[in-house]
Amino acid sequence: MLLPEAIQAAIDQKTKPLGALGLLESLAFQLCHAQQTLKPTLQKPAMLVFAGDHGLAEAGISAYPSEVTRQMVLNFLSGGAAINVFCRQHHIELTVVDTGILSPVPDHPMLQNQRLGSGTANMLHGPAMTSEQLQLGFEAGAKLVREKTTNGSNFLMFGEMGIGNTAVASLLMSCFLSLPLEDCVGAGTGLSTTGIQHKLEVLKKVREAYAEEMDAFDILCRFGGFEIVQMAGAMIEAGRQGCMFMVDGFIAGAAFLAAKAIEPNLSPWAIFAHQSAEAGHQRMLAAIDAKPLLSMGLRLGEGTGCALAFPLVQSAAAMMTEMATFQQANVSTSSQ
Amino acid sequence: MLLPEAIQAAIDQKTKPLGALGLLESLAFQLCHAQQTLKPTLQKPAMLVFAGDHGLAEAGISAYPSEVTRQMVLNFLSGGAAINVFCRQHHIELTVVDTGILSPVPDHPMLQNQRLGSGTANMLHGPAMTSEQLQLGFEAGAKLVREKTTNGSNFLMFGEMGIGNTAVASLLMSCFLSLPLEDCVGAGTGLSTTGIQHKLEVLKKVREAYAEEMDAFDILCRFGGFEIVQMAGAMIEAGRQGCMFMVDGFIAGAAFLAAKAIEPNLSPWAIFAHQSAEAGHQRMLAAIDAKPLLSMGLRLGEGTGCALAFPLVQSAAAMMTEMATFQQANVSTSSQ
Repeated sequence: MLLPEAIQAAIDQKTKPLGALGLLESLAFQLCHAQQTLKPTLQKPAMLVFAGDHGLAEAGISAYPSEVTRQMVLNFLSGGAAINVFCRQHHIELTVVDTGILSPVPDHPMLQNQRLGSGTANMLHGPAMTSEQLQLGFEAGAKLVREKTTNGSNFLMFGEMGIGNTAVASLLMSCFLSLPLEDCVGAGTGLSTTGIQHKLEVLKKVREAYAEEMDAFDILCRFGGFEIVQMAGAMIEAGRQGCMFMVDGFIAGAAFLAAKAIEPNLSPWAIFAHQSAEAGHQRMLAAIDAKPLLSMGLRLGEGTGCALAFPLVQSAAAMMTEMATFQQANVSTSSQ
Repeated sequence: MLLPEAIQAAIDQKTKPLGALGLLESLAFQLCHAQQTLKPTLQKPAMLVFAGDHGLAEAGISAYPSEVTRQMVLNFLSGGAAINVFCRQHHIELTVVDTGILSPVPDHPMLQNQRLGSGTANMLHGPAMTSEQLQLGFEAGAKLVREKTTNGSNFLMFGEMGIGNTAVASLLMSCFLSLPLEDCVGAGTGLSTTGIQHKLEVLKKVREAYAEEMDAFDILCRFGGFEIVQMAGAMIEAGRQGCMFMVDGFIAGAAFLAAKAIEPNLSPWAIFAHQSAEAGHQRMLAAIDAKPLLSMGLRLGEGTGCALAFPLVQSAAAMMTEMATFQQANVSTSSQ
């Protein structure tokens, strides 16, 4: 067992003033602690982008029509989306998971078929999914994580694609953090003020089905999304395996809230990529005491925040493995 | 001439909601505009770390003794410092510039000898440097930039090392932005509250020599540092060559203030790597309307903020060169 004090001492012996690398030092600490070594490594980093459609999108809660989910999945598979560009840049293996987009896409080496249906049911009229779908979803997410770790990955990143899922994430945030919807709803992919108002009204109607006694599984059945459920299952499994993972933005954050409600001791394995431009994200991150690495006004999803932040995680690991100590470099220490 | 409207149109045609990549889009715009192309490139990225000592350090304004400047330069040359680690990670060529540390170090392929003296004079008792030293410093910084661009670099990064230079930067900030010293002074490499108070008192004494009619050159002679002066000269030359450059933290920021006082139209070429933990940095960045890429509580200097932020600049370029447009990918556009 590598004690926290030993990790901190190793960080403090590096040739820099105490704490001078800020958040990068906290990240280095977390990596060392999670991997129980002073020389952490990031092996076969893998990005999993979970895609799914939402029955609720019928209610006009997004700036884009549902078919864009499928179109963007095809864009991922042909390598032209932002997430492809950033994954190529950092040599991150990209897997696109069809968790239930409206209609299937042709097979592709990058595509993982884990469909739970053709989009969720419209939660204005009933539960988004059955408890069987929920369980299958958790299992499918977990199984994919086991495949990646068995294959040698020790660092996973989770992103998503699904028209309407900012609305769903707002609803889940509101339930899991017991916050009024007003604190959780934002512009998503780019709604106008009127659009946001309409989204809020729709979500208020949906939320009437919420009751205090609902547990995490009940909440996810009633208000979840296929991509969110599989992502939550993946996060829980990553934690069980002791595999570090990075959470992208607002929607992945809502999946983390669900995962943490089921497995409370998940935070040591989780890194939060960025604080997005989505209105409720700052509050969400604060509620789970998360310190995001980036704050660049991103609101794209796809896991792009993770991919952009990934080199910072590499830097934190490299700081531990490559930097000289004061003693090695014969540098004087502080007089204060 | 590539019009701003054409650049914005190219960004908006990429497969993502309008503005969804936030600050990365502004950065892509700036790169395209500076390089006058929709396919910006970063060729032979080069990091210049300017090192110098300060006579004022005698007054006990830093947590470290002056010899640490030389010790850290030797650490740079043997590859063990944070800046070495991050430059290796991102394939950034590193040059360490001796602008006038207390005593010279042995020749090294990574070292550029541009000494203006053995540390500046103690500005408690008179000007930090002569106007001849200042002019030589500007020329030396500019010449190094010409060498780099002649050699094919089109992206430069500026960092520094110099015990006492946070104090000097605070003083310059106070003069160039006409702000009280209290708004400009912070903990540097890690002063205690008492240490900060002492630093402030020393700087107040020094600042008595400031007069409204002093121009940028007068201010730099009286209150400058060799590394800051050479960095300012390098920034001005980079701007003249139309070469993009990245400014590291608080001290490099003070050099930018000086450079901009001499060459007001410098901002289009400058990218600001990060907002540091140093107290006055946020105010400094706001005064020049700079949007830093990172905000991780860094306060190490050495150019480390630049090196850590560099992959984000690469991502901005890659977004322009590699991402598909809505038309290319057959993706529907927004309904709002």
